[in-house]
Amino acid sequence: MKVTSVKGTNDYLPKETALRDYLQGKILETYRSCGFERITTPILEDMENLDKSEGGENLNLLFKILKRGDKLTEALNSGNPKELSDIGLRYDLTLPLSRYYACNRNNLSTPFKVIQLDRVFRAERPQKGRLREFIQCDIDILGSSSTNCEVELIDTTAKALLAIGIENFKVRINDRRILKNLILSAGFHAEDSDSVCITFDKMDKIGAEGVRNELLGKDFAADVVEKFISMISITPFTLDDAKKYCTDTEAIDSVASIIATVKQLSGGRYDIEYDRSLVRGQGYYTGTIFEVESLDFGSSIAGGGRYDNMIGKFIGESVPAVGFSIGFERIASILMDRQTAISASRPKLAVIYPDGEVVAAIKKADEYRGEYDVTLYEKPKKIGKLFGKLEESGFYGCLILDESAEIKVLQK
Amino acid sequence: MKVTSVKGTNDYLPKETALRDYLQGKILETYRSCGFERITTPILEDMENLDKSEGGENLNLLFKILKRGDKLTEALNSGNPKELSDIGLRYDLTLPLSRYYACNRNNLSTPFKVIQLDRVFRAERPQKGRLREFIQCDIDILGSSSTNCEVELIDTTAKALLAIGIENFKVRINDRRILKNLILSAGFHAEDSDSVCITFDKMDKIGAEGVRNELLGKDFAADVVEKFISMISITPFTLDDAKKYCTDTEAIDSVASIIATVKQLSGGRYDIEYDRSLVRGQGYYTGTIFEVESLDFGSSIAGGGRYDNMIGKFIGESVPAVGFSIGFERIASILMDRQTAISASRPKLAVIYPDGEVVAAIKKADEYRGEYDVTLYEKPKKIGKLFGKLEESGFYGCLILDESAEIKVLQK
Repeated sequence: MKVTSVKGTNDYLPKETALRDYLQGKILETYRSCGFERITTPILEDMENLDKSEGGENLNLLFKILKRGDKLTEALNSGNPKELSDIGLRYDLTLPLSRYYACNRNNLSTPFKVIQLDRVFRAERPQKGRLREFIQCDIDILGSSSTNCEVELIDTTAKALLAIGIENFKVRINDRRILKNLILSAGFHAEDSDSVCITFDKMDKIGAEGVRNELLGKDFAADVVEKFISMISITPFTLDDAKKYCTDTEAIDSVASIIATVKQLSGGRYDIEYDRSLVRGQGYYTGTIFEVESLDFGSSIAGGGRYDNMIGKFIGESVPAVGFSIGFERIASILMDRQTAISASRPKLAVIYPDGEVVAAIKKADEYRGEYDVTLYEKPKKIGKLFGKLEESGFYGCLILDESAEIKVLQK
Repeated sequence: MKVTSVKGTNDYLPKETALRDYLQGKILETYRSCGFERITTPILEDMENLDKSEGGENLNLLFKILKRGDKLTEALNSGNPKELSDIGLRYDLTLPLSRYYACNRNNLSTPFKVIQLDRVFRAERPQKGRLREFIQCDIDILGSSSTNCEVELIDTTAKALLAIGIENFKVRINDRRILKNLILSAGFHAEDSDSVCITFDKMDKIGAEGVRNELLGKDFAADVVEKFISMISITPFTLDDAKKYCTDTEAIDSVASIIATVKQLSGGRYDIEYDRSLVRGQGYYTGTIFEVESLDFGSSIAGGGRYDNMIGKFIGESVPAVGFSIGFERIASILMDRQTAISASRPKLAVIYPDGEVVAAIKKADEYRGEYDVTLYEKPKKIGKLFGKLEESGFYGCLILDESAEIKVLQK
C-alpha cells in the first residue's frame, strides 16, 4: 500500500494544520464582521452543470466520478466515454454558489452577501507544482449591480489580507467590456476576442513584442495586430488612454469610480490601479475583473470579478453577481515559509501520571483545561527524555502527578 | 442546468452553516483542550489503498475518479472496468490517518493523539435517506496499546457531546476478541465468524429468535446455532457470563477495566455497559469496539474501536491504534430540529446609507466591527420593509447614515 498522499495533494502536519486553521478562522472572522454570511455547498456537482459553466481552461481539469453498477455497464456498452460519469468534483466555488442561489433564493436576503471557504479540485499537471485539491476563500454579492459591491468586496478582501499579516499588496482592476471594446476597435472580429485575450493576458510576462509575435503566429491580419500593439504599447496606459479607443463610457466610468472610492478607503495601506492587460481566465466574467498582487512575492494572491449571466443560466432570469476569491494555499505557504510567529493555539500543558492513575490524571488535567490544552502522558522510565520532547514540541510546562502540585515550566 | 444539489448531498443555508460551524468549533475546542492535535489529510486517496482497507460494506460504496486522457483510453481498451480508476474519495478518516501516520511518523509525537474533522463520501442508496457527502469528527491515539487510550477517547468524546448539549446518552462496549471467542465456543468455524457477526449485529432489532432464523437460513449446523442462541439468550448477558464461554481472559479484563475506570470519570453523567451483540461493521477492528447511543433519539451517534493491524499494512510493522468518531450529521440534524438556541455568531448590525455615501458608510461600519458583524445596505425607497426584513433576520439593530448617530434597536 502507498504511504504518500495522492499526487498533487498534501498531508498537513499538526503545526501546519494549526496555522491553516488560524488563518481560515481570521479570514472568516473578518468576512463575518463585514456582514457576509457563510454557506456550505457540496463538493460533488452535477456533471452537466460543470460542463456548461464556462470555466475556461478549468473544464479540461475536471475530476469526474465513475458511474456505478448497471449505469456503468450501460455506459461502457454505449462506447461513449462521456457517458461514464454524471457527477464531478467542483473546480471552483462560483458555479456551486450560482446553483445554490438559484435553488434557495427565496430563503436568502437581498442583496445576498455570502462567504464560502472550502475545498475545490483541479487535475493540474503535477509538474507545475500546483495542488489538485486546495482551499479557496470566496466572498460574493448577489442581486445588486451597484459598483458599491465591487468596493465592498475589495475593501473586505484587503481587510482580511491585512488581518493575517499580508501587507505589501496592490489591487489591479479592469473590465471585460473595456477589454473587448479595445480588441474590436483594433479591427479583430468579435469571435476572435477570447483568443486575443488569452495572448494579451501574458503581456506582463512576454511584453508587447511577445504579444505581437504570438498574435501573428495565430494568423491574425498583420495590420490589425500592428494597430492593437501600437495601442497597448502606450505606457503607462491609463483610463484616459482607454477612453480614446473604447466607446463603452459606462464601463470606463465604472472602473474610474471604483478606483476613486477604494483609494478613499485604503488610506494608503494599499494601492489600486487600472491594468489594461488584466484578463483572468474564466469565460463567465461579464464586467469588472480584479486581482490582488503581492509585491513581496510578485504573484497573484486573490482574484475575482462580475459574472452577471451565470445564475440566469439556472433560472432563466438574469441576477447580477460579483465575487472575490483569496487563493488560500499561496498565502498559507508564504506565511508558513515566513515562519510567522502566530500563536495559533492555547498554551500546552502535559500531565504525567504513573501506571494505574489515569482517573486522577484526567481529573487533575480537567482543572487546567479552562486555560491550557492538556495532554496526558504515562510516566516513562526515562523522564528526562520526555521533558526534552515536550520542550521541543512547544509545551509551556508539565505537571507530574503525585510529585508536586506545581507546574514545572519548560519554556523560558 | 439543474438547480438542486446532487442526490445525497445538501446545500446548507446561512443559519444552518452557522450552527454547523458552531458545533464543529465546540467539538474541536474540546478535543484540543484534551491534548489532541488536528491534522488534515486529502479527500482523494489511492484506489489500491481503499480497496485493501478492510472497510467492510463501505468498499461497495466507493466513489471512484475516472482516469483522464491517454490513461483513460488505455483503460477502455483493456476492457477491464477496474482499470478505469486509480484514485477514489475516502469513505472514512481511519484509512487516510493510517497512511498519514505511516508516512509522517518521524515528525509526530508518541503516542500520537490526533483529531480529524472533515468530509467523507459513501455512495449510500438514497432511499435510505443517508447522505453521500458528510462530516466525521474523529479522535485517535496511535502508538500505545494501553487501555488508558480507550478511557481517554471515551472521556473526551463524552466531554465533546456534553459541550454541545447532547446529554442523555450511554456508551456500549465490546471486544472483537470476546465476540470471536464466543462464536468459536459455540462450534462455528473461524472462517464463518464474519458471517455470524453480521447476523448477530442485528440482535437489537430482530431479537434472539430473528438471529436464530437468519443463521439457520445461512445453512449453519442446527446444533451449533442452538448452542449459540442459548448462550446469547442469557439476559442480561454480563461480562461474568462471557467469562464462562470466552477463554480470552485478557480481553475480558480489558473491557472490565475500561468500564470501571470510565464509571469513575463519568460521575453519573452517562453510563457505560458491556454489550455482547455490539459488532460494528468495519473489518479492520481487532480489539475493543464501542458506540455512543443517544437515549433521547434511540440511535448511535458515535462509534469506534481498536485497529492494531491497519498501520502495519503500510510499514510492515505493527502499530497499536484506537479511534472514536462522532457522526456529525446525525447530531447536527438533532440539534437543528431542536432549534437549539445557540448564539452561533456575534450580534448583527446594519448600516443603511444613501446612494453615493459608501465610503462614509464603510468608515462608520468599521467603528462597530469590533463588537458587531456589520452589514451595509443601500437605503431603499421603502425603508419600513427593510426594517421588517432585518428584524426577521435577527439583526440587533440598524444605524441610518446621516440621520442619527444612534443605533435603532430592532430586537426586544
